[in-house]
Amino acid sequence: MSLLVTGSIGIDTVKTPFGVSEDCIGGSAIYFSMGASFFAPVRLVGAAGDDCPFDFNELFKDRNVDLEGLEIRSGSKTFRWHGTYQPNMNDRDTDLVELNILAEAPPSVPANFQDSEFVFLANTAPALQIELLEQVTSPKLVVADTMDLWINNEKKDLLKLMKKIDGLVLNDSEAILLSGKHNLVAAAKDIIALGPKFVLIKKGEHGTLLLTDKDEVFTLPAYPTENVIDPTGAGDTFAGGMMGYLASQGKFDLESLKQSIAFGTVTASLLIEDFSLKRWDTATKADIDNRYQELKSMMQF
Amino acid sequence: MSLLVTGSIGIDTVKTPFGVSEDCIGGSAIYFSMGASFFAPVRLVGAAGDDCPFDFNELFKDRNVDLEGLEIRSGSKTFRWHGTYQPNMNDRDTDLVELNILAEAPPSVPANFQDSEFVFLANTAPALQIELLEQVTSPKLVVADTMDLWINNEKKDLLKLMKKIDGLVLNDSEAILLSGKHNLVAAAKDIIALGPKFVLIKKGEHGTLLLTDKDEVFTLPAYPTENVIDPTGAGDTFAGGMMGYLASQGKFDLESLKQSIAFGTVTASLLIEDFSLKRWDTATKADIDNRYQELKSMMQF
Repeated sequence: MSLLVTGSIGIDTVKTPFGVSEDCIGGSAIYFSMGASFFAPVRLVGAAGDDCPFDFNELFKDRNVDLEGLEIRSGSKTFRWHGTYQPNMNDRDTDLVELNILAEAPPSVPANFQDSEFVFLANTAPALQIELLEQVTSPKLVVADTMDLWINNEKKDLLKLMKKIDGLVLNDSEAILLSGKHNLVAAAKDIIALGPKFVLIKKGEHGTLLLTDKDEVFTLPAYPTENVIDPTGAGDTFAGGMMGYLASQGKFDLESLKQSIAFGTVTASLLIEDFSLKRWDTATKADIDNRYQELKSMMQF
Repeated sequence: MSLLVTGSIGIDTVKTPFGVSEDCIGGSAIYFSMGASFFAPVRLVGAAGDDCPFDFNELFKDRNVDLEGLEIRSGSKTFRWHGTYQPNMNDRDTDLVELNILAEAPPSVPANFQDSEFVFLANTAPALQIELLEQVTSPKLVVADTMDLWINNEKKDLLKLMKKIDGLVLNDSEAILLSGKHNLVAAAKDIIALGPKFVLIKKGEHGTLLLTDKDEVFTLPAYPTENVIDPTGAGDTFAGGMMGYLASQGKFDLESLKQSIAFGTVTASLLIEDFSLKRWDTATKADIDNRYQELKSMMQF
């Protein structure tokens, strides 16, 4: 089924203990699309400024990503983010954020994309997520990401969004912030009560926890990889693998959701083994499938 | 097969956001024995002072725990620990430690226990762990726990111990401290290189990671429980469930190890639902078995 992502396009500078990646491509819509494209065709909606040095057609060559919703806005500047990872590779400091085009009006969903059935609203201001969602006529599955900034500053809009989505994806500290509960199962229950049918809490290197409105629980460790070079984009790549798999299956029952979370996990585990999108120069769908089977057997008892 | 534990007996005062448990029974040997006794008979070696207010025969009534190795040392004072848990229930502050009897000579392994086949050396100074182990004539499986204190202050003894054990159990921050590696897979590999055939890294609410000297990896999330009242003793209870299950099977091949880790996980998940040992007033082996099946199905995809 058709899969739409709305999200950011960025120019990142990332420092990790393994090196520096300067002015590389980033942004949630980019990472998501790349991860999802292994599973299903992707429709990308996002905007960059005319300062953006990347050739998107070249970048997504051989990937099934429709760039009709990619706007290069003249006179605008591209979103920029500089970050430094701590030696544990889980904590990071933001050295610089320039919202630039993200502080302007969002791009529109092209007419050809408005019939999208599976929709992922990557992290941005919840009012914009709602505005983008309203341009999709009859979505079957809507999943959104959010972050501490909106939980702290745009709570009212976020609560409005929560009534319009099927699933929320957020990390553990954000789940605690949103719910006020420190226990993640309790936090997930509180978030479900706000509207979504399921919530997926990302715990970074510690894996994920899924809770549904029927109190179904699924818990998955991360794929244990030794070779973590740059975790930037792991969350969006996870979401890409997950939503891509669901779109490829055309359903989102509990079994499919569980499988999609495992596919998201292993897709992200590959991404982080190099800077920016470099890992996708060599990694293939077969690598993803192999890790999926490996993860399965690593957990079997 | 016979299972021996050497470890501490303590008088704990524990504060959590859910209340205070004053002067309650604690200590690694106690928590371990209680957890292991659901699976196999346990031989306990530990020492308390004559100030110790607990009736151990009453405590272990109906449990298959042999107290021949329990020494009540006259003129000595029992180990005391006071701790306060943070709202996240993972971090805790130590408010008071009185080593007391733990700073004296360790208890001996009784003659009747010296043929023990499965041995767990709960956390204490590595020189004492070696001294205790040397009293066991021909152990088949020796697993030890350790902590930051010994990694920092008794590294030489700890490295000597590492050559004498089959498995090391420690938590994630300790694995990082011991190896100098922040990535847990890399840390586990370094620890394996020090001697043990397997290392089991406990990540608290995030589960466990097993690595063997054959590069086999097993990863298990914690059982997601909402009802965490007091995590004290969770690690020793985990080890108790694990070693108890292995002793009950009489083997420690990879399959048995994986199952034992899952049993340890769910046994600890019950313990933490009340203060000190109170949860064992009502929880049964059937509760453990139910959670084992639940955990299995929560992870299946």
